[in-house]
Amino acid sequence: MKRTGIGKIALMLALNEGAALERHIEKFEEQNYMLYRGKVGSMETGKIFAAVETAAMREDMIRENYREEHALYHATMEAFSAYCRGQVDLGNVLRSTGLVFSIARGNLVSGDKSSGEWIAVVLYGQIGSPRQGFEHEAIGMGIQPV
Amino acid sequence: MKRTGIGKIALMLALNEGAALERHIEKFEEQNYMLYRGKVGSMETGKIFAAVETAAMREDMIRENYREEHALYHATMEAFSAYCRGQVDLGNVLRSTGLVFSIARGNLVSGDKSSGEWIAVVLYGQIGSPRQGFEHEAIGMGIQPV
Amino acid sequence: MKRTGIGKIALMLALNEGAALERHIEKFEEQNYMLYRGKVGSMETGKIFAAVETAAMREDMIRENYREEHALYHATMEAFSAYCRGQVDLGNVLRSTGLVFSIARGNLVSGDKSSGEWIAVVLYGQIGSPRQGFEHEAIGMGIQPV
Amino acid sequence: MKRTGIGKIALMLALNEGAALERHIEKFEEQNYMLYRGKVGSMETGKIFAAVETAAMREDMIRENYREEHALYHATMEAFSAYCRGQVDLGNVLRSTGLVFSIARGNLVSGDKSSGEWIAVVLYGQIGSPRQGFEHEAIGMGIQPV
Amino acid sequence: MKRTGIGKIALMLALNEGAALERHIEKFEEQNYMLYRGKVGSMETGKIFAAVETAAMREDMIRENYREEHALYHATMEAFSAYCRGQVDLGNVLRSTGLVFSIARGNLVSGDKSSGEWIAVVLYGQIGSPRQGFEHEAIGMGIQPV
Amino acid sequence: MKRTGIGKIALMLALNEGAALERHIEKFEEQNYMLYRGKVGSMETGKIFAAVETAAMREDMIRENYREEHALYHATMEAFSAYCRGQVDLGNVLRSTGLVFSIARGNLVSGDKSSGEWIAVVLYGQIGSPRQGFEHEAIGMGIQPV
Ligand SMILES: [Mg+2]
Ligand SMILES: [Mg+2]
Ligand SMILES: [Mg+2]
Ligand SMILES: [Mg+2]
Ligand SMILES: [Mg+2]
Ligand SMILES: [Mg+2]
Repeated sequence: MKRTGIGKIALMLALNEGAALERHIEKFEEQNYMLYRGKVGSMETGKIFAAVETAAMREDMIRENYREEHALYHATMEAFSAYCRGQVDLGNVLRSTGLVFSIARGNLVSGDKSSGEWIAVVLYGQIGSPRQGFEHEAIGMGIQPV
Repeated sequence: MKRTGIGKIALMLALNEGAALERHIEKFEEQNYMLYRGKVGSMETGKIFAAVETAAMREDMIRENYREEHALYHATMEAFSAYCRGQVDLGNVLRSTGLVFSIARGNLVSGDKSSGEWIAVVLYGQIGSPRQGFEHEAIGMGIQPV
Repeated sequence: MKRTGIGKIALMLALNEGAALERHIEKFEEQNYMLYRGKVGSMETGKIFAAVETAAMREDMIRENYREEHALYHATMEAFSAYCRGQVDLGNVLRSTGLVFSIARGNLVSGDKSSGEWIAVVLYGQIGSPRQGFEHEAIGMGIQPV
Repeated sequence: MKRTGIGKIALMLALNEGAALERHIEKFEEQNYMLYRGKVGSMETGKIFAAVETAAMREDMIRENYREEHALYHATMEAFSAYCRGQVDLGNVLRSTGLVFSIARGNLVSGDKSSGEWIAVVLYGQIGSPRQGFEHEAIGMGIQPV
Repeated sequence: MKRTGIGKIALMLALNEGAALERHIEKFEEQNYMLYRGKVGSMETGKIFAAVETAAMREDMIRENYREEHALYHATMEAFSAYCRGQVDLGNVLRSTGLVFSIARGNLVSGDKSSGEWIAVVLYGQIGSPRQGFEHEAIGMGIQPV
Repeated sequence: MKRTGIGKIALMLALNEGAALERHIEKFEEQNYMLYRGKVGSMETGKIFAAVETAAMREDMIRENYREEHALYHATMEAFSAYCRGQVDLGNVLRSTGLVFSIARGNLVSGDKSSGEWIAVVLYGQIGSPRQGFEHEAIGMGIQPV
């Protein structure tokens, strides 16, 4: 069976829609990945971080300890830094975002237990002026061992 | 017909493989997108920039003028900054990458001519130690009007 | 006739005063440049971005579409990043600014139509403690095709 | 007598405790260093800058002029940038800190008058979630001639 | 017994000298910390990263797997980013460094097994012109779960 | 007499040409400013730093001590960071520059001795592809007490 990285698993979870999304989730949940997909929109950077962390905790994707929370935080920070492509900020530099985020937890490479357990966070959405249609797409991903 | 952003078109061009990749290319070339997918691996940042620029010029995806070359350069810079998630460097900070890059040129939103013509650059691959298996995935995307 | 870059045109629009400023404006408006000079002071980064964008729209320097608004936004972001020379922030790092901003729209090089149409944003002013005399000068410029 | 850099003097002022701290202060005050150690905790970046500046002014460690205030500001900015190790922000990226700061003023190298007068700012503390135990240590130092 | 963070353990390992250093090492090795202290000087960023990684591997402070190597790399990256206080570079911006680095592995907080196992990297030294005496001290620290 | 900031003095030294440049130099040398204007072109960041430092030393604009060299270095670093408007790099990100640099030393504000002695560094030129005409203007300025 072809091996897939946890990054691509999280990316396709954020990018797919409809039947393809359902098949993707089913396929990788069978391979013991924990998967979550949510939405958040804001001009406040903190809201993005909070949405990812709240979802991961509510869905028991990270255990209630600092090591795992730290891994999630750094993965989210990397994803958000990438999403911003330079100045890591939203409302302070007068821009807004609406995005889908995905979280995947499991082996770094599907079917390879020796690669250990990791967590991937993907942000994919629209960034721009807080005005309809004055925005373009952006993506960011962070991956950490957990 | 469902509308797709140029970002997702470039992302799926980098992420898809096999038959799904072929269908994706066929579908969006019919909608007048120019698409290109290439590979590059290096410890030198400049090699990544050069691979994208050389391909775009050779494939006539940008016209031989500075306005278009400038758009491609900034899209590549944004994609590479995102890919690095912090310090924008490879070999200087002792890491290496092997990646697929994709370039898409066409409307910002498929089927919406009023959105104008844009260029999207995606980098997707593995980043890490220059040692087999000591690496994880990364992704970056930049979008500019052209 | 000597050729001048749009950057220098915007720079001298921000830096000149009195009769020299009037001659500068007259000279380059005759060469079909759109020029604007305004002032803004704040501890809030967003106020600087808003002042530039509001002026450009009110003066019809950019058309009511996303491509042009995007070019202005990126030019302003580059100018502000340069102005800050490191951490891109004002009030969060306890500093304030009072500045003159200029916007120029026209050919990249005066008298060279083949260079195409570009927009330049310059910020020039004083940055420092929110206390009289505890500040020094700063400058930043961003240039984008439009 | 062994020579010590102003950086190490400020570092040990922040890191030492109890009797070792008292000996350290006594030793370097005898060598004409001005020393101060304070505490501050916040999710707001500006509060950290304000705590350092207020203490330095109240303790007459910098003279009431812009040259000296500028040196202190840049030393604090360097220390805070180092403390954050990447994105220079606290509450905006949903993290909080509680820290000890130290300020030292005197020769760059103890006992070497020719090295001139400098100021060092050190921040040492815990950074993390605003939740008990979900945090790790961080340190930052900035040094400027004054 | 008073509890000490792994950060302070690594900091004092880099900052102490002579008998105090020996006592420090003895005290925390008894508490099951793995400790290492080395030296490196260079104008090349990569040499700093290589010195830390080589030492950690040779001393068996990290196991021969990617999860642990990744933790060490990110700790070193954070330490080096902090050390540079802005532009993360040495020779490219015409500066050189000579430094002591320390690595500590063990509980996040001494005597608290529930805090789990972490790795801390500290860089402490002189940074400046490649000319005797034209340099000042700098410090950086990164901490990651391992 | 109207007062001028050292920043504007250095800016006009870099931007003026011909007779206006000569009048500018004469006017501010009479007011005891030390002024220098040079040129440098390169794809190597280090060459820009070296050109400024070498000129300042050769022209005796800074004294042969670390305090003054440090002030010049930080002013140059700020100017170069601003000039790059994001990623602080040239050849590594496949771009080249040709620029005029200016250095001014004297009071922060002309005719105001109480403002103390400062140094300003300005970089103004063209940045872009290493290909004729594929470049646009950029500017950067750094100011430090000396
Ligand atoms: Mg951390
Ligand atoms: Mg550009
Ligand atoms: Mg954009
Ligand atoms: Mg300053
Ligand atoms: Mg990583
Ligand atoms: Mg320095």
